[in-house]
Amino acid sequence: MSLKSSVFIATSLDGYIARPDGSLDWLDRANESIPEGEDCGYQVFMESVDVLVMGRNTFEKVLSFGGDWPYGSKPIVVLSRSHVAIPDAIAQTVSASSEPPRVLVERLATTGAQHLYVDGGQVIQSFLREGLIDEITLTLLPVLLGAGKPLFGRLDQDVELMHIATKAYEFGFVQNTYRVIKK
Amino acid sequence: MSLKSSVFIATSLDGYIARPDGSLDWLDRANESIPEGEDCGYQVFMESVDVLVMGRNTFEKVLSFGGDWPYGSKPIVVLSRSHVAIPDAIAQTVSASSEPPRVLVERLATTGAQHLYVDGGQVIQSFLREGLIDEITLTLLPVLLGAGKPLFGRLDQDVELMHIATKAYEFGFVQNTYRVIKK
Repeated sequence: MSLKSSVFIATSLDGYIARPDGSLDWLDRANESIPEGEDCGYQVFMESVDVLVMGRNTFEKVLSFGGDWPYGSKPIVVLSRSHVAIPDAIAQTVSASSEPPRVLVERLATTGAQHLYVDGGQVIQSFLREGLIDEITLTLLPVLLGAGKPLFGRLDQDVELMHIATKAYEFGFVQNTYRVIKK
Repeated sequence: MSLKSSVFIATSLDGYIARPDGSLDWLDRANESIPEGEDCGYQVFMESVDVLVMGRNTFEKVLSFGGDWPYGSKPIVVLSRSHVAIPDAIAQTVSASSEPPRVLVERLATTGAQHLYVDGGQVIQSFLREGLIDEITLTLLPVLLGAGKPLFGRLDQDVELMHIATKAYEFGFVQNTYRVIKK
C-alpha cells in the first residue's frame, strides 16, 4: 500500500493529550509561550496530508471551539460507531464512517489518497494496534498533568520505532519523529 | 535547601519503565544497539550524586541481577514501609528507611549531601507529588510497549517544567532534561 498514515500530536511529558474532562487549558497555556508565526511544523505537515481521519470525540471538540472550521477544504473522515451530526457548512469536506480502520485505509488508498493524518487518542490507538501507523511526530510539552486522556494505549505486541528526527524548540517543546518498523 | 534531587531514567515512548511483570527485556534489547562505551551520560551523572534513594522494588530488582553490586561505594537508601533484607556484602553502603520523603531529604541535607538520585517508579512519583524533585533526565527509547509500570503517576497539581537540554543519539534514544519549576 503506497498510502502513508501519520500521527502529529502534542502531549504532556507524562503522555496525556487532554485532561480527564477533555480540557486543553494546559496546551493553550503552553502555546502562549510560542513565538508569533511558529507552528512547530504543523502547516507544512498539513499541506502534505490528503485526508484527515479523526474520532468523534476529537471532531466534537474541534466543533466546540466555535469560530471558523480550522481545516479549510481538507477532506475529513470522522470515525464513529454511532451517528455523527455534521453541520451543513462543512458537509462538503467532512464525512462520517463506521468502517474498521483497515477497511477505511484500503478504501482511501483506492481513491488516490497518499497521506493520512490520524488524529484523536482512541483512533490513534486503534490504528497503532492494527499496524496502520507509519510515522509518529510527537511534540512533548514541558508539563506533567498527573492524569488525563493518554495518547498511547494497549497494544497486542511491542511497536518498534526508528527515530527519524528531534527538534528542541527554545520555548521548551521537544518534537520527536519516529517511523514505525513494520514486521 | 541546597540539596538537589534528580531523576535519571529511561522509558519506552509510551512512558513505561518496566513491563507489567517488571521485566526489562525491551530495555536490554534496546541497549544492545548502543555503541561500546556509550552510557548516555550515566557515569558522569552518577559521579555527581552523593546519595541514591530507591524503592524496595528497584532494590530487589537490582539484587536479582546477581553479579557485582553495581553502585560501588555510593551510599544508598532503600525506602520501604516494610523490612528490607540487605545482604552483608553491601550493608556498609546500603541502609533502609521508612521515613516520609520530605523527612528523608531534610535528614540527608543535614549530613551534607548535595545531590540525590531518586530512582524507581513509586519513589519518583511520591517525590514528585511532594515537590521534592528538582531535575528530570528522561531518555526515551524508540519502542511502544502498550502496558507496564509507568514512570509518572497521579499528582495533586500540574508540575511545570523548564526544558534544559535535549540530546538525540544516533542509535535512536532521545534524552531530555527538565528542571522542575517550583511554585
